[in-house]
Amino acid sequence: MSELDLKAQKLVLKAQELDAADELAALRGKFVLDTASDPADLEDLEDLADLSGRAGDGDGAGVYLDGNSLGALPAAVPAHVDDVVRRQWGSLRIRSWDESGWWTAPERIGDRIAPLVGAAAGQIVVGDSTSVNVFKALVAAVRMAGDGRDGRDGRDGRDGRDGRDGRDEILVDATTFPTDGYIAGSAARMTGCSLRPVTPSEVPGALSDRTAAVLLNHVDYRTGRLHDLPGLTAAVHEAGAYAVWDLCHSAGALPVGLDEYGVDLAVGCTYKYLNGGPGSPAYLYVRRDLQPRFDSPLPGWNSHAEPFGMRPEYTPAPGALRGRVGTPDILSMLALEAALEVWDGVTIESVRAKSLALTDFFLECVAAYVPEGRVEFLTPAAHAERGSQVALRCPDAGDVMKRLIENGVVGDFRHPDVLRFGFTPLYVGFGDVERAGRVLGDVLVS
Amino acid sequence: MSELDLKAQKLVLKAQELDAADELAALRGKFVLDTASDPADLEDLEDLADLSGRAGDGDGAGVYLDGNSLGALPAAVPAHVDDVVRRQWGSLRIRSWDESGWWTAPERIGDRIAPLVGAAAGQIVVGDSTSVNVFKALVAAVRMAGDGRDGRDGRDGRDGRDGRDGRDEILVDATTFPTDGYIAGSAARMTGCSLRPVTPSEVPGALSDRTAAVLLNHVDYRTGRLHDLPGLTAAVHEAGAYAVWDLCHSAGALPVGLDEYGVDLAVGCTYKYLNGGPGSPAYLYVRRDLQPRFDSPLPGWNSHAEPFGMRPEYTPAPGALRGRVGTPDILSMLALEAALEVWDGVTIESVRAKSLALTDFFLECVAAYVPEGRVEFLTPAAHAERGSQVALRCPDAGDVMKRLIENGVVGDFRHPDVLRFGFTPLYVGFGDVERAGRVLGDVLVS
Repeated sequence: MSELDLKAQKLVLKAQELDAADELAALRGKFVLDTASDPADLEDLEDLADLSGRAGDGDGAGVYLDGNSLGALPAAVPAHVDDVVRRQWGSLRIRSWDESGWWTAPERIGDRIAPLVGAAAGQIVVGDSTSVNVFKALVAAVRMAGDGRDGRDGRDGRDGRDGRDGRDEILVDATTFPTDGYIAGSAARMTGCSLRPVTPSEVPGALSDRTAAVLLNHVDYRTGRLHDLPGLTAAVHEAGAYAVWDLCHSAGALPVGLDEYGVDLAVGCTYKYLNGGPGSPAYLYVRRDLQPRFDSPLPGWNSHAEPFGMRPEYTPAPGALRGRVGTPDILSMLALEAALEVWDGVTIESVRAKSLALTDFFLECVAAYVPEGRVEFLTPAAHAERGSQVALRCPDAGDVMKRLIENGVVGDFRHPDVLRFGFTPLYVGFGDVERAGRVLGDVLVS
Repeated sequence: MSELDLKAQKLVLKAQELDAADELAALRGKFVLDTASDPADLEDLEDLADLSGRAGDGDGAGVYLDGNSLGALPAAVPAHVDDVVRRQWGSLRIRSWDESGWWTAPERIGDRIAPLVGAAAGQIVVGDSTSVNVFKALVAAVRMAGDGRDGRDGRDGRDGRDGRDGRDEILVDATTFPTDGYIAGSAARMTGCSLRPVTPSEVPGALSDRTAAVLLNHVDYRTGRLHDLPGLTAAVHEAGAYAVWDLCHSAGALPVGLDEYGVDLAVGCTYKYLNGGPGSPAYLYVRRDLQPRFDSPLPGWNSHAEPFGMRPEYTPAPGALRGRVGTPDILSMLALEAALEVWDGVTIESVRAKSLALTDFFLECVAAYVPEGRVEFLTPAAHAERGSQVALRCPDAGDVMKRLIENGVVGDFRHPDVLRFGFTPLYVGFGDVERAGRVLGDVLVS
């Protein structure tokens, strides 16, 4: 046996042991995954080309490490969606707004997400896209920070003519997913603020009595770095500003602790680690004590205290549903609700433990199978700084990912030179991880 | 036979003749409707109680006249949605963004809606709710009307300090669906404008060189009144302002002529006469020559010229897709796409002709079956002023609608005293209309 084969033998055995001890392993059965969960037989190791061919055979077969972009299909979803379409829409029709619970779905599903992000009930509504929710949250935060900081009232505040010294600056994570920066730019422009891009580590030094709100990503979409939500939130509060967190890459993968750390507002998508389906609706968290001051820039009729009163004057509803806007997108929303059933009886702490074990093991496999120096590790080694993905940099990343996918290992490529591998603990096993590392090594040396 | 029975005999025969001559009658087969399409047998007329009992038997059975709230289920939708869920999401997963055409769905489906509202391709994108699109359209219109009319730049314009005489007023239809007024209020507040509610007939007199934009409903949601889109648009343009039309209650029911009449921006929902399903995504029309000046208040990454470039600077895409925001809601969007297949080979002109025939016939049936003075007709008698619904006012409307629904005739009730009956020409027949009128008469005299 070659040195590589010996390493592989060891890692395959370790994967088998880890899978056997995995208390979440049975959850894999709640997803539609067209690949075997067992690690490869040792015999297969003799012929990596054969292994790769087998894994890559057929549509979508192989190891799926792109759940940080689009989560796999939970097995309960298709039948539920069919019922929503045929019976709730097709037969009950308009009656379903009451009888099938359509009208209350945004807050009901929000309450289902709440424990996964450390929030008590009554603080989350589901609906709209992440971008739209970033806009709501950031504008509302600026308004909380300095009453009347919008276009009409804020003018006076900004140039000091009425003696108010305004909080007129929004800090935004410069490394964040671009849409957050674009939307923050619009929120700043429309509230008379300036926008100051900083890195998360620069936030404490950049905070001042001018700071109105700070928009941060909990986990960086590119590097997989986990930021210090408790510490940064405390620093933002210390400066008298409001913290808005984007949880797209952390919710469902690790504990967030929104209530515990006093986060003001938060948003997130549901199609990554929450497996809600392509473009499934996002959510908005508004901390309970801030809800009476949540002044939405998108006061649609769904957020009215009496939506069917059809009143010309806007009176916001109490509570989290003040964050609603228009008619909720029922098909996508109820698909998400069915998808969330996989969480019944699962704690986010157990998911986090497995996530770290998976990424640790992947780093170990990459170190074993990939020649030193061939890739750069972008994801921090420290657990406290790691989300549920591993990002590797290499100059030919685009081509490498193409070949990985051809060989049945699905991650994704981020311009210009990043390979991303997402590990969803609900359905990714250690055998998958070993196989992915081995195929990656094969692709990188060939 | 009583006088009422003689009237009924005549109307049933007329319904049969109209149904027989209806060139759109076959389209009914493209929808899931659990009720017979034939008018009642004449024998049934002897016993209205029996008829009502039969029609009201079972979930959702009967005459569905609430397509102006939620369109019926097109028969092609369930299988298509199942394919989207099981194959596109469940098997192809992330590959579907390209291979299943997910990424381009907003503009592709926009182009499918375009001919129904008189728009050439390349001017409509689908996504978000109507409320969110009203916000985009109105803020963009104000920005077009007076450069820099937003919170930061507009301040100077508004108080004239820099010598610009500003267009700082938004006119909004005071009779409009409330969400439009609420969102217009937010758009005004955030762009430094004032909001002036007027009735549509007051618009010409209210226009001035202060007017930035005018938001109007094409068909009033409550009364069913059709407003003069060509004339009002021309008046708005004459005043140098921008016209934003809400097509929720007209698209799919009558010709709109967006391009022909030079409408600037328009929005609409897709779950009424377009039968897209509960909360299906709305759409935004931006006239081609205005697209380079469309400055969105929600510049999400989907509207970026290079969305996967992940650039920190926002550079808007050319064309209609500048109106996109975040990740599109694929399940709901592709359900809508399948729902739109029923329009293949159908002209909006033929739909309008049948719509007017249906509402004419309903007014005739109401006049025959309902004692004079028992209800007030809110919907104009003139074809040029009538949408595809009939609204009747009576003091006990809430109770009347409850009893109508118990008897198998589904319309809806709008606070405080309005009965609404919507007529979707694609699946409502003249036999339905006669039956609805007869059951209404029965309920109102009992």
